[in-house]
Amino acid sequence: MIYFDNAGTTKVDNECMAILERYCLENYFNPSALYRQSVEVKKDLKRARQEIVSALRGDGEIIFTSGGTESANMAVFGVTKRKGSRIIISKSEHAAVKNSALKLREIGFEVVECDVDIYGRVDEKKFISLVNENTSFVSIMHVNNETGGINDIKRLNAIAKSVNKDIIFHSDGVQAIGKIPVNLRDLGVDLYSMSAHKIHSPKGVGAIYLKEGVRINPIMHGGGQELGIRPSTENIPAIMCFSLMLKKMVKDLSKNLEKVSKIKDFIQKNIDESIIKILTDENCSPYIISLALKDVRGEVMLHSLEKYGIMIGTGSACSSSKKNTDHWQLPYLSQSYKNGKIRISFSHENTVEQADYFINKLNLEYSTLKRYT
Amino acid sequence: MIYFDNAGTTKVDNECMAILERYCLENYFNPSALYRQSVEVKKDLKRARQEIVSALRGDGEIIFTSGGTESANMAVFGVTKRKGSRIIISKSEHAAVKNSALKLREIGFEVVECDVDIYGRVDEKKFISLVNENTSFVSIMHVNNETGGINDIKRLNAIAKSVNKDIIFHSDGVQAIGKIPVNLRDLGVDLYSMSAHKIHSPKGVGAIYLKEGVRINPIMHGGGQELGIRPSTENIPAIMCFSLMLKKMVKDLSKNLEKVSKIKDFIQKNIDESIIKILTDENCSPYIISLALKDVRGEVMLHSLEKYGIMIGTGSACSSSKKNTDHWQLPYLSQSYKNGKIRISFSHENTVEQADYFINKLNLEYSTLKRYT
Repeated sequence: MIYFDNAGTTKVDNECMAILERYCLENYFNPSALYRQSVEVKKDLKRARQEIVSALRGDGEIIFTSGGTESANMAVFGVTKRKGSRIIISKSEHAAVKNSALKLREIGFEVVECDVDIYGRVDEKKFISLVNENTSFVSIMHVNNETGGINDIKRLNAIAKSVNKDIIFHSDGVQAIGKIPVNLRDLGVDLYSMSAHKIHSPKGVGAIYLKEGVRINPIMHGGGQELGIRPSTENIPAIMCFSLMLKKMVKDLSKNLEKVSKIKDFIQKNIDESIIKILTDENCSPYIISLALKDVRGEVMLHSLEKYGIMIGTGSACSSSKKNTDHWQLPYLSQSYKNGKIRISFSHENTVEQADYFINKLNLEYSTLKRYT
Repeated sequence: MIYFDNAGTTKVDNECMAILERYCLENYFNPSALYRQSVEVKKDLKRARQEIVSALRGDGEIIFTSGGTESANMAVFGVTKRKGSRIIISKSEHAAVKNSALKLREIGFEVVECDVDIYGRVDEKKFISLVNENTSFVSIMHVNNETGGINDIKRLNAIAKSVNKDIIFHSDGVQAIGKIPVNLRDLGVDLYSMSAHKIHSPKGVGAIYLKEGVRINPIMHGGGQELGIRPSTENIPAIMCFSLMLKKMVKDLSKNLEKVSKIKDFIQKNIDESIIKILTDENCSPYIISLALKDVRGEVMLHSLEKYGIMIGTGSACSSSKKNTDHWQLPYLSQSYKNGKIRISFSHENTVEQADYFINKLNLEYSTLKRYT
């Protein structure tokens, strides 16, 4: 089996299983209860919070959520913004940010979508032209989930703040944390969203970072958990796994980057560019490579590779069941490539040998499929 | 160790660990992806949904959420309601419903709180007087989380619908499912909230039941998961555990009820009623017994019992860190009992021997503490 869909979700690291067992069977106590065992769990929770802030070099707080989608929703809806003010997002945001922002438009905000390049990166000149004094909130993703395109968040944040220092800047860091270097202090963002299951930790948990002094309103109401910002009994087992895995991924970051870069380079060098367009450049995350097949549908290729035990994606898993007729990448693709997109995404557990096997089968299947188009 | 705080959270059942392992290490695929392995996971998800509806004898759909709090928020905020219309809740609702409803009041709804008896059960006459044609939404919990008081949801729903058939009736079933018989068809409710971690399943997952034909709007935006109502990658490992445990608890319901009733009866019979008020009657769930100590603070007793390895609660864990100066039960308690509340809550894993040990230590500690008041 070759799993090349790690931007969709990842296999849970073996080390997490011991943590799950510990917090499900032994230290299963509700951190809001008052006896010693619960107070201990509450301390573990606090430590996890601090370890995540520190792994990402932040100055502020971590609020645990149910995942990246909830974190993004908290950012978009939780920030106090003047009705009618301008909200800027990029055209290539994940559905969690995009659809939330479109909801804001419905209720009277001026939502503008900044143009992006073929890798989903914000066009800086366009961005400069969009930021004005009426802008209250900006949300630009750190690493694009379909192409690996990396936005220069530090610069974009500085540009926004230079026009209006009160702008709250959110970045969706779901595909960034544990994979590329993230220094929240240096980026300067006010809010940063994360998900655990993209870094070999169990599903069902995520977080939002709040820079020191930044406040958001809760989007759900209930008990006083998570500093009063996110109610619900904390998902301690998954939170403890998340903290462990982030530390581990950050510690191994350079080593993993080197490994994954070799895999991506291998694929890039061995693709027949007369039939497959490689949608990446040196400024994209090596964890993702986006390809566009000429005259062959991406979904058909995905199914053709299944018989070899190869699993790939076609784009964001969160959008796979919807037709993306207005997809941001379409203007850059000529007709023959428009339906041919596939996404290959890696983890440090993948190997160059797997990439070699993948390329062989991709070429083989391409020639077969091409005959029928 | 004697864990008598099962209404707060429960120890995860051993059987869940194999499921977690399976869906974290083997079938970890994103159910939104398109390859066979993901399609299989999606089928498992669908099966879990159906099994939960069927275990609770419902006609409708299950939407998985991050827990009871999110489910309650989806009910309160997700139902389309005319601005200014009346919302009825009970005075003893969990914070997830109460604080959500209070938020609705802030934005222009008429939120009324129905009186309850000392067990948190809705006063039927008062309820009848509150329901009017302007009422759009009612939320009454099934089993009270502090006392085990069971509301006659079927009757209350029928009363509401007889005044205005368009009223949407939600019930918070967090302390009911798997513990007392729940027949959603018979109850007739439109929406019903659940949590997994109160029935020996991992934290981080819950569900909301939508009766056939009932629609709610999403409170978060993103991908099209969960029938378009709740975005975010589905927490498959925990969902599969939830479904397993609910089936198991429903199957063993009578046997467990009998076991737990013996424990509660034992405590009830052996309490010295001259010093401890028992806040329960024959219509309360046997899984919870609420006590009020005379002239001894509940929290002090909780800590005194810790040295014997006995863990109890003082009320809702979700409210334990807040001062409940306006608590619904206060009007029923004379001054000497007001600060003495403790909550003992059971699971089928508890025994009468544990109850015996608890009573001994409770009496012993009571006499010691009483000397210092």
